Amino acid sequence: MRENNRVYTKKEDENLIYGTRAVIEALDAGRMLNRVFIQNGVEGEIFKELRNKMKEHEIVFQMVPVQKLNRLTQNNHQGVVAYASPIEYQSLDDIITRVVEKGEVPLIFILDRVTDVRNMGSIARSAECHGVHAIVIPSRGNAGVTADAIKTSAGALNKIPVCRENHLKDAILICKQHGIKVVSCTEKTENLIYDVDLKGALAIIMGSEEDGVSKEYLKVSDEKVKIPMEGTIASLNVAVSAGIVMYEVNRQRNI
Amino acid sequence: MRENNRVYTKKEDENLIYGTRAVIEALDAGRMLNRVFIQNGVEGEIFKELRNKMKEHEIVFQMVPVQKLNRLTQNNHQGVVAYASPIEYQSLDDIITRVVEKGEVPLIFILDRVTDVRNMGSIARSAECHGVHAIVIPSRGNAGVTADAIKTSAGALNKIPVCRENHLKDAILICKQHGIKVVSCTEKTENLIYDVDLKGALAIIMGSEEDGVSKEYLKVSDEKVKIPMEGTIASLNVAVSAGIVMYEVNRQRNI
Repeated sequence: MRENNRVYTKKEDENLIYGTRAVIEALDAGRMLNRVFIQNGVEGEIFKELRNKMKEHEIVFQMVPVQKLNRLTQNNHQGVVAYASPIEYQSLDDIITRVVEKGEVPLIFILDRVTDVRNMGSIARSAECHGVHAIVIPSRGNAGVTADAIKTSAGALNKIPVCRENHLKDAILICKQHGIKVVSCTEKTENLIYDVDLKGALAIIMGSEEDGVSKEYLKVSDEKVKIPMEGTIASLNVAVSAGIVMYEVNRQRNI
Repeated sequence: MRENNRVYTKKEDENLIYGTRAVIEALDAGRMLNRVFIQNGVEGEIFKELRNKMKEHEIVFQMVPVQKLNRLTQNNHQGVVAYASPIEYQSLDDIITRVVEKGEVPLIFILDRVTDVRNMGSIARSAECHGVHAIVIPSRGNAGVTADAIKTSAGALNKIPVCRENHLKDAILICKQHGIKVVSCTEKTENLIYDVDLKGALAIIMGSEEDGVSKEYLKVSDEKVKIPMEGTIASLNVAVSAGIVMYEVNRQRNI
């Protein structure tokens, strides 16, 4: 094992990890990886070990040409470059258990493919201001917790717990097992949000900027709500919508 | 008067106007100028005429080195470059009169030094979705209606009337003369927004990202309201706050 295998580079991006062994060690140390890039066609025992580790930790990886890796780092990457998450993701199940033990009423926000990093950061900022207990994001197809997201969040992403699930259905299931009502924020309903009781334990699903909450999650939601709108533009920005929903929940709970 | 004095360039930015005579003509034609840059040390009758015109139209201008102008355009600018507004600003007084004549209850948003173009655009988008009648901005110290603002607004800035006042106090005065209640959204109050009656004619002042609503406008406000918050981060993003206020107004009015 050479020394440069284990170097966590600081010059490029402090969350960038390169080298097969370094990535394996990061996984062993419990570091969460946002993305892993592996060079097309690489082989050997150590790659097999890496693949098994990633499978075990349910890490998604991507096969790429060597040029891509060379652009990411000028160091000896040996065919593997990964980005560690700047934050530690947490267990939704644990968070809900703790919240209930403290006698608080759970309020969770589940983001279904919110792809804009600024929206992600803005939602986290509003969530922290409104006492939201956790934000849940999927492993793929959602903006991750990047340095830019943390900046837009005004630091909130360092304070509010974020949970990352390979399948959001698992998160929805966990919420339901805890007796938490799952509510989708969507235009595809006639229920105005202020007419719906939001005082109990709640998980709110906010959908993508493009097409809102996925059909499969709409189906398993206990309730659908919409924010009343006039005007000719189709919809509010998702970060503004999320802020309004948080406000409405707190308004109802504080009455 | 040479022909190239009157060319409105399209290659660089369709809102860029160069040449002394062209800027004078734009003013005579009633075009609104967002910014005017004049070369340091220029003299002559025509500049005197331009200055008088700008004074008459209450246009703010800035003296700059010739290099600055050369960066803005490669054409023969003759010491003057201006940016026309991509939208036509409207008269607040006229808008309120029309709204009242239609039997609607006025809802105006006054932005006190919201400097981020994206926030400006986002507020316009939410405003259009919530049936806000006009957005008022000051001539200086606020994000203008730029191409970026229009993009972030999802086109809303082409639909919702925008009024630009040299002094926001004038806008506040106009609102008061029409019997509109002026409400500042600020953390410097104990009045929670949902406890305040927002059903009547309203003008809401939203403050800057840095320090909120100016003291002088807080003083002349009929009411101050705050959005209830928990958490340790000081405040919500101004665009999210504005969205929440619009939602709350509509919630109260629709009950």
